[in-house]
Amino acid sequence: MRLSEGVEWAVHCCTVLAALPPERTLGAGALAEFFEVPKAYLAKHLQALSQHGVVDAVPGRNGGYRLARATAKITLRDIVTAIEGPGPCFRCQEIRRRGPSGQPKRCYTAPCGIARAMWAAEKVYLDALARTTLAKLIAEAAHEVSHEQQAAMARWLEQAA
Amino acid sequence: MRLSEGVEWAVHCCTVLAALPPERTLGAGALAEFFEVPKAYLAKHLQALSQHGVVDAVPGRNGGYRLARATAKITLRDIVTAIEGPGPCFRCQEIRRRGPSGQPKRCYTAPCGIARAMWAAEKVYLDALARTTLAKLIAEAAHEVSHEQQAAMARWLEQAA
Repeated sequence: MRLSEGVEWAVHCCTVLAALPPERTLGAGALAEFFEVPKAYLAKHLQALSQHGVVDAVPGRNGGYRLARATAKITLRDIVTAIEGPGPCFRCQEIRRRGPSGQPKRCYTAPCGIARAMWAAEKVYLDALARTTLAKLIAEAAHEVSHEQQAAMARWLEQAA
Repeated sequence: MRLSEGVEWAVHCCTVLAALPPERTLGAGALAEFFEVPKAYLAKHLQALSQHGVVDAVPGRNGGYRLARATAKITLRDIVTAIEGPGPCFRCQEIRRRGPSGQPKRCYTAPCGIARAMWAAEKVYLDALARTTLAKLIAEAAHEVSHEQQAAMARWLEQAA
């Protein structure tokens, strides 16, 4: 079970978009340059964030992306779900119904206990991701990221946004 | 983030192996027949279970697979880890170090807060899987699986094992 590398990219992009002045945006090209990642792949992930309401895509010549809401209202769960899609990690193919001991479909009234246990574990994973907001990650980073890096990012944002 | 279909197959196979009389085994072919899944794929997953110590591969003409330990000592975490591999779901590529604000590697003494939060959520997922034993799943199934299916499985086991 592997998450797309797009999850790391998307969370980092959201932290940069959070630093934008009001009414400013950043395009996929600028964000790809900032993180030295392939623009085409990043653009796909930014579109996914937009489709799931995490960022707004502002059209036009000075358009680009900005966060769709306050950083306290965006969680790791929102971003992971946007990039990975909303489906369950564990998909039950109902193999219990097959083969020499399988019974007619109507005999299976409840989901299989294996699927229930797998989905319960997924719920605690997503709940944990939902407890981490972008605001929290940014507040922690403010203490941990060096002054040099913060200053370099501010300089870059001034000319890129 | 999607788990391999092998997880469902592997957990179901372990519940069948749990029903074997002592000293008996089942081969990949018999298990593939029981669940109507492709033998070659299932064999790969059974080998993974064996490599991770969930099942024993008994060699020889009457050989096959059996559980490596008691069902109370085998958890969903053991099986998921065997099938999916032990690495983290979230891989940090350290993109924070790249681009115009990137600093020399020595400036980053702690893991990125994003990676820490992702890994903390993974830990609660794996902890939840670790709380579900094969013994618990089988005890629940004993109440939920129809008598017809249980009888059909017992008949099949008698001739297959």
